[in-house]
Amino acid sequence: MFSVASINPTEARRMIRNNEWIKPTAGVANGYTQANLVVLPKELAFEFLLFCQRNPRPCPVLDVTEPGSWVPNLVAPNADLRVDLPKYRIYRNGVLTEERTDIIDLWNEEMVGFLLGCSFTFEHALMNNGIPVRHIEESRNVPMYKTNIPCVKAGRFEGPMVVSMRPIRRKDVVRAVQVTSRFPSVHGAPIHIGDPEQIGIKNIHQPDFGDPVTIHEGEVPVFWACGVTPQAVAMEVKPEIMVTHAPGHMFITDLRDEQFGVL
Amino acid sequence: MFSVASINPTEARRMIRNNEWIKPTAGVANGYTQANLVVLPKELAFEFLLFCQRNPRPCPVLDVTEPGSWVPNLVAPNADLRVDLPKYRIYRNGVLTEERTDIIDLWNEEMVGFLLGCSFTFEHALMNNGIPVRHIEESRNVPMYKTNIPCVKAGRFEGPMVVSMRPIRRKDVVRAVQVTSRFPSVHGAPIHIGDPEQIGIKNIHQPDFGDPVTIHEGEVPVFWACGVTPQAVAMEVKPEIMVTHAPGHMFITDLRDEQFGVL
Repeated sequence: MFSVASINPTEARRMIRNNEWIKPTAGVANGYTQANLVVLPKELAFEFLLFCQRNPRPCPVLDVTEPGSWVPNLVAPNADLRVDLPKYRIYRNGVLTEERTDIIDLWNEEMVGFLLGCSFTFEHALMNNGIPVRHIEESRNVPMYKTNIPCVKAGRFEGPMVVSMRPIRRKDVVRAVQVTSRFPSVHGAPIHIGDPEQIGIKNIHQPDFGDPVTIHEGEVPVFWACGVTPQAVAMEVKPEIMVTHAPGHMFITDLRDEQFGVL
Repeated sequence: MFSVASINPTEARRMIRNNEWIKPTAGVANGYTQANLVVLPKELAFEFLLFCQRNPRPCPVLDVTEPGSWVPNLVAPNADLRVDLPKYRIYRNGVLTEERTDIIDLWNEEMVGFLLGCSFTFEHALMNNGIPVRHIEESRNVPMYKTNIPCVKAGRFEGPMVVSMRPIRRKDVVRAVQVTSRFPSVHGAPIHIGDPEQIGIKNIHQPDFGDPVTIHEGEVPVFWACGVTPQAVAMEVKPEIMVTHAPGHMFITDLRDEQFGVL
């Protein structure tokens, strides 16, 4: 039986390219690393790369294209970033103006594509270690919160860190730290364990992005740096044009999750 | 008794700034991370940062200054990269033209300073684990070799990876991999274990840079990516001006070696 879970990344991207798959990519080509996309004009690229370098927890860079090129040579040398994501969002001067399934006409010689690690990788690692991930169990979006933790500024890019939250059983907290520490290039270890107020979160049941999830008796809220951070920060700079993936509609790389483990 | 080993980084940099210390920095402010310096004009900074991002094993970026600023805010916010290294090398159009103890007159608003992790950090970790480091025992420079492993190109920057070699007792090889894997931001795990020819090294007793060291019976040559790589690659681009630290005359940061351990 045909299953999108077991196809390889090249096949997955071909389906996406032909608009045969325009849904979220969770569960597609299982075991292969998926990535956030940010496309910016060259004029902002150095400052944005610097911002990512200074804030590796929320902004783990997996690949950056040469200016004008749509090929992510490190993570998928036969891919095309203009067509290989199921859905894109176009921001003009910091405002979302459009969603579409390709950006061929927008990509000119000034464009630089950034692929950033996403939490799917460490969530698989958690589940493989017997640690359930609540928003997946509840078929919701992960809850995300603005914090009082400032990112390190780089040129025009600055702002607070955004975190995602997963409730973890008290007995699993240490293992969750160990498991996610293995993957520094996809957000790595938690930013905070326990008290949401300590990092400026007033109401854990009202996330700033995504959906609330159930926190059971005996569970601890654990917070990881979130890939929404660089998008939120870039939007504040109000670039003439910026393109990102639509939430959940990620880029599928040729690399396996385990290849990002440092040990 | 006064000992340079036990002074703190601020004191060490003050001595260096006042030309009271113009020798190599090995053994100064023990336990604090030292870094390689590369200074390039802004025009080349994005491509160089991209090169480092694509080649994190030989080019682990610890900090990058804003263009024109000499302050490495992440690793030593009260330091001055123009005076806080004991000795600098000036390259013009790819040729070494000068060595000096400060670069105040060369630093203009176009200059960007890059600090890259150095092997001192993982060498301390090896020794703390009872694994001797031969070139330190023999008071020599570490042997370094050009390999047949190409770096990933970025703009004008390309070239082979340079590696350093440390002979390790057969029984310690696994532990050496574990110990250095903890420190991905200072070169991390070895690139190669065993046969030098596999990575294009013809004669292990004739390094391309540094000094040869003794390899005893029962020892295995183990190779790590080396921070000389980005300098060698940058020199090939022949920038109008490039400044680096003089070999062994490193920048001393405020951060402790252990803070770079991922687990």
